[in-house]
Amino acid sequence: MELLEERIRRDGVVKSEGVLKVDSFLNHQLDIDLFDAMGEEFKRLFADAPITKILTIEASGIGIACVVARHFGVPVVFAKKAQSINLDGEMFTTRIESFTHGRVYDVIVSKKFLNADDHVLIIDDFLANGCALNGLIELVGEAGATVEGIGIAIEKGFQPGGDDLRERGYRLESLAIVERMDPETGEIAFR
Amino acid sequence: MELLEERIRRDGVVKSEGVLKVDSFLNHQLDIDLFDAMGEEFKRLFADAPITKILTIEASGIGIACVVARHFGVPVVFAKKAQSINLDGEMFTTRIESFTHGRVYDVIVSKKFLNADDHVLIIDDFLANGCALNGLIELVGEAGATVEGIGIAIEKGFQPGGDDLRERGYRLESLAIVERMDPETGEIAFR
Repeated sequence: MELLEERIRRDGVVKSEGVLKVDSFLNHQLDIDLFDAMGEEFKRLFADAPITKILTIEASGIGIACVVARHFGVPVVFAKKAQSINLDGEMFTTRIESFTHGRVYDVIVSKKFLNADDHVLIIDDFLANGCALNGLIELVGEAGATVEGIGIAIEKGFQPGGDDLRERGYRLESLAIVERMDPETGEIAFR
Repeated sequence: MELLEERIRRDGVVKSEGVLKVDSFLNHQLDIDLFDAMGEEFKRLFADAPITKILTIEASGIGIACVVARHFGVPVVFAKKAQSINLDGEMFTTRIESFTHGRVYDVIVSKKFLNADDHVLIIDDFLANGCALNGLIELVGEAGATVEGIGIAIEKGFQPGGDDLRERGYRLESLAIVERMDPETGEIAFR
């Protein structure tokens, strides 16, 4: 998606070989007009899929998922990273390793909000090694629901998560795939 | 707001005298059409305020804030609950006590995303004792920015947060104010 690639080139900061900082528009300050354009593009890409629900994971996936969901006319469910006393009842659970935060999370979704009739579009801001997405796919599987597709804002094409998911047959659409980043020059090359 | 009160009556569950569960539409599964109607209402209520930015706190405020922001045409900034290795640079910081989770959080916003020219609308899903909001107000103050108003989905009118903020002169608009809840009958009375 040209608009997103341009924005990454303009406002993204290559912090190191693996770290791309896009906090000015994607995951700390959020550009809602950009998210809206991304929602339109995901709707175009998944126009034929019978999506009933959008699933994401807190925290930085939620904003994109909600703006995208308007284009599909479906609710969002976000997986939570820890048990809260307000979240009783039965849960689908999995564990996700976060390399960014250097820890392992328990991740939960209430059984009330995913079921065997659901056709799920998974939305997230970043895809690198795929740990978070694999956890979300597992939660959908526990519910007996169907993963119709996966929509990602930025995929790090030099990490294995995206290609693994494609090889396993998932319909994965990443709006920008970063192939190489140079922390010396700040240059970013897209696939 | 009639639509929200009806929805709370229909789908809210009174778990105990102080705990209202609205996870089927507000803070786990998210009803985007409802959020959109809330956005329209906040825009009506704050039509004359020169809002430049919407501030919220992760995680459950983000979805509402993003859908509301479309109606104002401004970016969202969400305060983060812990330091991430991707979030370097200088930060505004405060501490927030969460009664729901029984712990104290460090809360941060990058100095890049709030400044003295900003006129901020603070958005959150719940207002009870006001700890989270007071933390967000403090962050806006650190930036030298102006709090134009505070927009809340559900205020627990029987807890002191809302009235404290009104007494301190903040322009606070809660779309539904719960005055009493009865865990025996499930009855919910609004102000």
